[in-house]
Amino acid sequence: MSEKLIVIGGTAAGLSAASKAKRRKPDMEIQVFEKSGYISYGACGLPYFVGGMIPDPEDLVSLTVDQMTRNRGVPTSIHTEVTAIDRENRTVTVKYLDNGQEQVHGYDKLVIATGARPVRPDIPGVDAEGVHYLRTVEDGIRLKNAVKAGTGKPAVILGGGFIGLEVAGELALSGMEVHIYEKLPGLLAFLDESISRQVLETLERNGVHVHLGTGVEEILTEKGAVTGVRDFRGEETDAGLVLVSIGVVPNSELAKAAGLELGIRGAIAVNDRMETSDPRIYACGDCVQMKNRITGEPAYVPMGTTANRQGRIAGENAAGGHETFPGVLGSMVTRVFDLYVAATGLAVSQAEAQGYKVAATVITKSDRASYYPGGRDNRLCLVADRKTGRLLGAQGAGSESIAGRINVLAAAITCGMTVGEIHRLDLVYSPSVAPVYDPILIAASQAMKQVEV
Amino acid sequence: MSEKLIVIGGTAAGLSAASKAKRRKPDMEIQVFEKSGYISYGACGLPYFVGGMIPDPEDLVSLTVDQMTRNRGVPTSIHTEVTAIDRENRTVTVKYLDNGQEQVHGYDKLVIATGARPVRPDIPGVDAEGVHYLRTVEDGIRLKNAVKAGTGKPAVILGGGFIGLEVAGELALSGMEVHIYEKLPGLLAFLDESISRQVLETLERNGVHVHLGTGVEEILTEKGAVTGVRDFRGEETDAGLVLVSIGVVPNSELAKAAGLELGIRGAIAVNDRMETSDPRIYACGDCVQMKNRITGEPAYVPMGTTANRQGRIAGENAAGGHETFPGVLGSMVTRVFDLYVAATGLAVSQAEAQGYKVAATVITKSDRASYYPGGRDNRLCLVADRKTGRLLGAQGAGSESIAGRINVLAAAITCGMTVGEIHRLDLVYSPSVAPVYDPILIAASQAMKQVEV
Repeated sequence: MSEKLIVIGGTAAGLSAASKAKRRKPDMEIQVFEKSGYISYGACGLPYFVGGMIPDPEDLVSLTVDQMTRNRGVPTSIHTEVTAIDRENRTVTVKYLDNGQEQVHGYDKLVIATGARPVRPDIPGVDAEGVHYLRTVEDGIRLKNAVKAGTGKPAVILGGGFIGLEVAGELALSGMEVHIYEKLPGLLAFLDESISRQVLETLERNGVHVHLGTGVEEILTEKGAVTGVRDFRGEETDAGLVLVSIGVVPNSELAKAAGLELGIRGAIAVNDRMETSDPRIYACGDCVQMKNRITGEPAYVPMGTTANRQGRIAGENAAGGHETFPGVLGSMVTRVFDLYVAATGLAVSQAEAQGYKVAATVITKSDRASYYPGGRDNRLCLVADRKTGRLLGAQGAGSESIAGRINVLAAAITCGMTVGEIHRLDLVYSPSVAPVYDPILIAASQAMKQVEV
Repeated sequence: MSEKLIVIGGTAAGLSAASKAKRRKPDMEIQVFEKSGYISYGACGLPYFVGGMIPDPEDLVSLTVDQMTRNRGVPTSIHTEVTAIDRENRTVTVKYLDNGQEQVHGYDKLVIATGARPVRPDIPGVDAEGVHYLRTVEDGIRLKNAVKAGTGKPAVILGGGFIGLEVAGELALSGMEVHIYEKLPGLLAFLDESISRQVLETLERNGVHVHLGTGVEEILTEKGAVTGVRDFRGEETDAGLVLVSIGVVPNSELAKAAGLELGIRGAIAVNDRMETSDPRIYACGDCVQMKNRITGEPAYVPMGTTANRQGRIAGENAAGGHETFPGVLGSMVTRVFDLYVAATGLAVSQAEAQGYKVAATVITKSDRASYYPGGRDNRLCLVADRKTGRLLGAQGAGSESIAGRINVLAAAITCGMTVGEIHRLDLVYSPSVAPVYDPILIAASQAMKQVEV
């Protein structure tokens, strides 16, 4: 009899696992259960769907239930929630949300890819009509409809992380008045202060109101609908809708109830093979704890790239393979209006917390030859180990090309390069693409003066 | 008495050497002699000056004679040719071209940065009025004036290398009919055939006439001025001007006459410290032989980035330092209309010539998430050692972001990464900047299937 693999969750990690397992072991019987109404959607595109750049929610979907079920031979159900795992009898209880019926399915191998959910603040008014989150396609449709309905009143965004900033940009471009509340004294506060300030200036130049160092203590309502917010200082702002984007928590309750080991922030503990504490059960994506690639320490950095990659590894191994996940650098990029911001590796504070004596260098340099029209400043911040000169992290802001530059530095960190070695890189040059000394080389040259080797 | 350093040549390599030596050893007496009328100019910008995007030749100059002489304390003369080196007496003979006078100057250390000059084809008509080269600012001014004067007849470009293609693009954009003659069967023939074809299609789509597999056997003239060209097949094309861009040769005659050792293609032989066979004499830039960083073999890849870098090292060492030049990967990028083309490391043919059993992989992938508007295909070709999986070279074509991707691969080659290790890189992702699996990761994944590890 063929082995049976059940996958809980049908977005990035879950479908990657199912597809990979099927490719590796075509006679494996594989079934996917997804609680929501959509599978295989690009959640990172939701802000652009809300803003209107992407017209249809189906555009975000790369594989349909039918394609998974027929073409890939992996029966996939939506509106289907796994409510319990019985490890002893190797079964899961499945609840069909459309009719409330429950069934029990046996498994030989199980992949948990239950993802994460937005943090819900414990403040008055949080249950009012007009309070939104942005995690699922359904969330996106609700928020887009609210934007289209248009009360004429401002949008208030709680949290100045990537999603908050991306939605702020899209809503402001569509003509709405937008307010962001961030409890920390700066936006994207893990970045160098000069980059954080540049993000703030870009938002304000584009008309977004940013309230720093203060949170919302109450969502004001009238007849159960949002009318505004009051912040810690007692100041009030009118609001037609509120988007809460203050972070996510892993959906690990199912794993916990089954007695699986959890790690930091309640994420499911897995080894490099994506195995949980039960060797028949794998977990991957936004519900698991990962390892920082530089420090080897546990980390929780939920991201789409990681989810896809971990899913493939879980699927490969569930089907008998031996792949390992190397851990994360936390490489990331976002666009705030016309400013691209990217980072990889350790921030200064993270490196210091690890006991490194840090050399931080910030440079600003055009991304083209000085005489070539259209150049834009690239700001680069390098975080190096003062003692060995080894690069630990990098952050940048500027034109789109900053993404490629941070990727070069991600490769350099992965290889354990020192800033001196980075300075010796032979990078491409043409006046239309870079100055003769690329900003990376200028930054490395400055960093060399601060390290002891 | 302070040491005396003489630098022959005042562009990228020479001025980098002089400036670096002065910074390291401020009491060193340093003098720069430049034969042409311009110092410190960005030669790579000349095509854009000719085309009009850069209005003034002075825009290409980053340091004036006055700035070098007064601000940096390095007396610098233009129109001043060094005609002989007397190694025994440690003197150079200097000819002031404006008045024909000669002087002899003593040196303790000498830096030769005489650059390279365009190859002159030995064909009838090559001395006619209307035959141009593009190497110095004076060349650029002459060519731009010819373009502006406008005979109404086509421009013919001999050679389909980077300079030829860049000028072709600029002249076509300014409305001229442009013909390129390339003896080889493809453009940029060291690139993968699919990329070479993409370059050809881009030129033709923009109205440039490309004649492949044929050269010009005669430049046709009337009263000493260009009227057209006749190719190897006997076909004639009208021409108002001809640009010869079929490569460069190192200006090493002075070094040769002084008995210094030469290397491949007549370039001056130097060690990693940029010392010639005479330890008091350094050489750098387009006049020297370099080392391929992967193979360790001698190479001659004259480029602006290398010249600047070697100049600094020569200057540092001439002033008592101990810097070394790591060699070149041959990293390069150019823009052909809206197509960016970049490469680093070994091409397939170069790798095979070195005895590698090559695995070549070509992929095409959008540079954005599939659902995000405005994505453009990136084509990537990886050249790997089939036996070890180590990356040896990479080439790409597509949007501007291809430059950053090739830089990532340049770093990977430098670190000796395998395609499997590259596939495990944690690169940045956002729908507006990359697909969730970056083209680099897709290419590495495909390459892994072709290597034996």
